Amino acid sequence: MSPRNADRDRLLREERREQLREAALEVIARRGLSAAKVADIASSAGVSVGYVYKYFESKEQLFMELVEEGQLRYREFVAEVRARSGSALERMRWYTQQWLGKKEWAITILLQYARTSEAVPEHFKLEVSRRFLDNLKPLADIIKDGQSEGTFVAGDALELALLYVSLMEGLTLHNLPGVQEINAGTPDKALGLLLLREHDPS
Amino acid sequence: MSPRNADRDRLLREERREQLREAALEVIARRGLSAAKVADIASSAGVSVGYVYKYFESKEQLFMELVEEGQLRYREFVAEVRARSGSALERMRWYTQQWLGKKEWAITILLQYARTSEAVPEHFKLEVSRRFLDNLKPLADIIKDGQSEGTFVAGDALELALLYVSLMEGLTLHNLPGVQEINAGTPDKALGLLLLREHDPS
Repeated sequence: MSPRNADRDRLLREERREQLREAALEVIARRGLSAAKVADIASSAGVSVGYVYKYFESKEQLFMELVEEGQLRYREFVAEVRARSGSALERMRWYTQQWLGKKEWAITILLQYARTSEAVPEHFKLEVSRRFLDNLKPLADIIKDGQSEGTFVAGDALELALLYVSLMEGLTLHNLPGVQEINAGTPDKALGLLLLREHDPS
Repeated sequence: MSPRNADRDRLLREERREQLREAALEVIARRGLSAAKVADIASSAGVSVGYVYKYFESKEQLFMELVEEGQLRYREFVAEVRARSGSALERMRWYTQQWLGKKEWAITILLQYARTSEAVPEHFKLEVSRRFLDNLKPLADIIKDGQSEGTFVAGDALELALLYVSLMEGLTLHNLPGVQEINAGTPDKALGLLLLREHDPS
């Protein structure tokens, strides 16, 4: 194989792996971790069962990869928000817009499975919690900046980060495709809860 | 059967039905709606499979009863909060304490299944959303009272109710039995987000 072909081949493998991941994410979110079968994932991605096993050892391994990858992707995102220029308020508004715009309901559900499901090994549950706490830190740093700048409410920044992330998760699970409830998940309304009142955007 | 025995019999049936419901709630939350088997529920409640079918037609019917009953119970709770004496702030503090104290993680997970799972019929999804919106109203009324009393932030009360309930749900799913993350779910900290700053309890 020429180097160019080898490159193309690697790219194709990466694309297919990503395509399988996306199919698996939605199938597991909709059917549940235990009930989702590798055959369902294969059929949703339009490939054979053997094809899935070419890329992933087992459904459990695929699930754990999805969760870990989701948490690392979020970590990069929140680190990027922290490193942006602008005030804490501007950065938090951008974070909120991005999060609510991504509509990451499927990964939010998978993260909840990772915490609650009997099918998830204990050591993995602990890793998920450790990464979750770690991922709160960049957000807590932005909240601290906002407190220094006089825009955000007082209080332990890590706890406020947890409250804000819980709010984001709750809103995500009320703004699901096909569910018609009400949507108060506009960035400024959510952000309003963190702001000192003289900065209220409403 | 004497009337007294008939009463005792009815009471016993109600108790067993309730015991089965509690077992089913936790088994379905831990295993997923599709993966949880009637046999698992029976075994967790310490009864036979036939015994479960004496009380419930099918697992799906049991699931739908649990969700509906959970939403009606919440409705009574929030109507009770609304009818309490005291300021809006006092009533919302009581509501928050009660909610976070109940640790209703299992029903929170079942309500999410009701919205997202493929195994749930469309008409039931719509009923769940309708009841959810309906259940926001007593909370929105309390928030309106708090706005009149000058303790709560401005904004559409129904949207603020959704934001607050989303926060409660998110916090509940981060305070699970056996999960060691951080717990910022103290009533005053959560409530702090809704308060005008001069009323901040922190």
